[in-house]
Amino acid sequence: MLKDIYKTSLSLLTDFYELSMAYGFWKSGKKDLESVFSLNFRSNPFNGGYTIAAGLQYVIEYLQDFTFHADDLEYLAGLKDEQDRPIFEEAFLRYLADIRFECDVEAMPEGTIVFPYEPLVRVRGPIIQCQLIETPLLNLINFQSLIATKSSRVVQAAGEEPVLEFGLRRAHGIDGGLAVSRAAYIGGCSATSNVLAGRLFDIPVRGTHAHSWIMTFESEQEAFDVYGDVLPDNSVFLVDTYNTLEGVKKAIKTGKRLRKKGFKLMGIRLDSGDLAYLSIQARHMLDEAGFTESRIYASNDLDENIIQSLKAQGARIAVWGVGTKLATAYDQPALGGVYKLNALKSEKGQWEYKIKLSEQNVKISNPGMLQVRRYKKHDEYAGDAIYDEIRGIGETPVIVDPFDITRRKKFDASFEHEDLLKPVFRAGRCVYQTPDIHSVRQHARQQLRHFHKGIKRFVNPHQYPVGLEEDLHKLKTRLVLKARGFNDTKNGG
Amino acid sequence: MLKDIYKTSLSLLTDFYELSMAYGFWKSGKKDLESVFSLNFRSNPFNGGYTIAAGLQYVIEYLQDFTFHADDLEYLAGLKDEQDRPIFEEAFLRYLADIRFECDVEAMPEGTIVFPYEPLVRVRGPIIQCQLIETPLLNLINFQSLIATKSSRVVQAAGEEPVLEFGLRRAHGIDGGLAVSRAAYIGGCSATSNVLAGRLFDIPVRGTHAHSWIMTFESEQEAFDVYGDVLPDNSVFLVDTYNTLEGVKKAIKTGKRLRKKGFKLMGIRLDSGDLAYLSIQARHMLDEAGFTESRIYASNDLDENIIQSLKAQGARIAVWGVGTKLATAYDQPALGGVYKLNALKSEKGQWEYKIKLSEQNVKISNPGMLQVRRYKKHDEYAGDAIYDEIRGIGETPVIVDPFDITRRKKFDASFEHEDLLKPVFRAGRCVYQTPDIHSVRQHARQQLRHFHKGIKRFVNPHQYPVGLEEDLHKLKTRLVLKARGFNDTKNGG
Repeated sequence: MLKDIYKTSLSLLTDFYELSMAYGFWKSGKKDLESVFSLNFRSNPFNGGYTIAAGLQYVIEYLQDFTFHADDLEYLAGLKDEQDRPIFEEAFLRYLADIRFECDVEAMPEGTIVFPYEPLVRVRGPIIQCQLIETPLLNLINFQSLIATKSSRVVQAAGEEPVLEFGLRRAHGIDGGLAVSRAAYIGGCSATSNVLAGRLFDIPVRGTHAHSWIMTFESEQEAFDVYGDVLPDNSVFLVDTYNTLEGVKKAIKTGKRLRKKGFKLMGIRLDSGDLAYLSIQARHMLDEAGFTESRIYASNDLDENIIQSLKAQGARIAVWGVGTKLATAYDQPALGGVYKLNALKSEKGQWEYKIKLSEQNVKISNPGMLQVRRYKKHDEYAGDAIYDEIRGIGETPVIVDPFDITRRKKFDASFEHEDLLKPVFRAGRCVYQTPDIHSVRQHARQQLRHFHKGIKRFVNPHQYPVGLEEDLHKLKTRLVLKARGFNDTKNGG
Repeated sequence: MLKDIYKTSLSLLTDFYELSMAYGFWKSGKKDLESVFSLNFRSNPFNGGYTIAAGLQYVIEYLQDFTFHADDLEYLAGLKDEQDRPIFEEAFLRYLADIRFECDVEAMPEGTIVFPYEPLVRVRGPIIQCQLIETPLLNLINFQSLIATKSSRVVQAAGEEPVLEFGLRRAHGIDGGLAVSRAAYIGGCSATSNVLAGRLFDIPVRGTHAHSWIMTFESEQEAFDVYGDVLPDNSVFLVDTYNTLEGVKKAIKTGKRLRKKGFKLMGIRLDSGDLAYLSIQARHMLDEAGFTESRIYASNDLDENIIQSLKAQGARIAVWGVGTKLATAYDQPALGGVYKLNALKSEKGQWEYKIKLSEQNVKISNPGMLQVRRYKKHDEYAGDAIYDEIRGIGETPVIVDPFDITRRKKFDASFEHEDLLKPVFRAGRCVYQTPDIHSVRQHARQQLRHFHKGIKRFVNPHQYPVGLEEDLHKLKTRLVLKARGFNDTKNGG
């Protein structure tokens, strides 16, 4: 996919500090230190109860193509410091020219339902490589997971009715628009208006006509009639160019013409005004004229809350077109994923656990070779344990809530379980078979059925239990206390 | 630029309805009707007093390369309707294969200060072509103008101090990140962390190191010392990995080592906690140690409001690193630009004026071949007249506020004036000489100096006078009344 889209090498698609750190690791002889990093976010977006992982396919393609090209290195060679001296030595650039990705990567498959603090991606390998890929991993995973989650919420609100993603004109640039369509489909949208996304990602495309079509003709009636003549199987008429209910009458008139010719009136689209009132009126008018199967499409700055409200008002909308609010994740346009060093192998070959402190408890990172084990009982997911693969996890683990250490949960042998991070790269070689996008979408949808339905609530959602496995919790507590100068405590938990 | 970035043809980067309308125009014999469309937005983003136009360079490159490739057409040929019949006739696809862009385009140069209802781009030509390019024009102009405007606000807040754009990890995808860096630079940022943006757009790049650098070493002190040794001219130390003020002490210690070796301590970076308090303390400590020239960098979810607040609290920050809130335009992640049909040439060769009605007055479009004339007196911009080039504009025009027709302003011959839309394409050929990005940035900065400073205010900004030239206002009023069935009125204004 990325190769189909991007001509340029993406090796420089990174923050400059990744390169200055890489230079530092190289110069200080630390570049090959074995390290483990992981990517996680700290709260579900939109004050929601869950997040849908997405973006891995882009990450895989980026990593498979991870090499510095001659023009990348030429650019780096030309960078000067404030004294107008080259920033990077030539020998370092020669080293970069030869670098090939050789890390192990584990990741949650796209479409996995995930929660705060759970690693979505874990990278193990030479620290210089783990570090260089930080920014693109964050960029790709943060954005696509954000949009897949927003899409899932909108689709939840719409219930049985399909949601079409119409966001390209307000999306953040070209790829902002393309990746939106992909992630929105993973989250549950039925189709996109974006034709290129349709072609590149095998997503259904939909759309009919704009106000300008109507304005091109002498009358709205003529505009509908001509459109019906030329595209009889795409006969969804936009009725609000002049006066919505008058528009509905004209659409019905065109519908009768179509019926005589053996075609159906597919529907009408409302794009402004009081969508609840107008859809109820329009439904009545369509039914009266015998067009009970013609569907009412609605658009106009919709999101999950407006859809929920319209449904509560009895709106008779059969297809939801959602653009700006979905494509930009309007009410929270960023997922705050971070990528942190979790462990480092010492010269003696021992893993050393690493944490980053912070005044804010939520910003303290977790140490270890992190994995997530998800427990299930009676066909419902019961909780997730974040554990350290170096130390392992017992048969009957206890998890500890990171923000209230007295909130704990125990899983006994009666629970089924599954580790969520799957092998994606081994020593730089991709070992993951990417499922097609329709399976990914299906995967997201199916899992949601097995969570407590409270996590799907928009207001004060149920908090699905996620905690640190008890041993890891104790280890982390000791490390934090030690870093804060309380070496001596006997209270490890 | 686009050719450097994108491998794929962008002709399908459009909403499906553009193609179904194109098919309709083609089948109904209307495809070559001469039409005029224009792109405008309806309110300044962020409740601000102005907007900065950006994205034109991308538009130019997109239009220069506007052709359907064989694989695009193959994809379109495979699209089926609900009866599983091909949507498009083969003859239409053959027509698309031969289509070459042949419109006239006028546009505001990038970096122009613009206001609601002013056309940023105007396209004149065969309706099928004007229509097909709608979505990409909106995508490119909406997004880059939004970010340039956000950047300008952040830069206004920072005053004399430089702002660095650090948004790639939270930006909306790859190109979301690249175009952000470009637009943020146009808006006034001094540099970006995004190395690829630096290479592609000739923008300065900046950055030093992350928490992971510190965590790689046995101690924070060792981490600073090694970084200072290997990159002495980039010695900005991130001090908050464990305890911020302790970190500052260690940075000072490393600074003294650097001083002995003939280097400077460039600065420290604060990335969490109370930035006002910490920067004041850190400034004091640095000054005490004789590092009066070392600069304090700050980052952590900054935006124009937080910067303003920190400055009001006496924060001693010399360089602002702004990421998420800038790169996603967090508080308003979409500019609602629209693209509307304004006039159509009849078969008799007469221009017919076109409007789209709406229940909401703000959504009624303006008719005509729109142009914007900006008036200036005593070195300050005094107001803009939106006028119709078909009907022209007088020497001493009156402008009418579209939402309060009793608010008017007259410009006499003592005003200088300039038409803001400049020729960009003539019959499909680019006639515009794109200025380099540094000139564009300078252009934005210089114009802002000639507006009433109240437009830069964040709360209740001054409303710069923009109105319809009186004749155009009367024409529009007549058209709206007529469309609403009040043909008879004598009250034209």
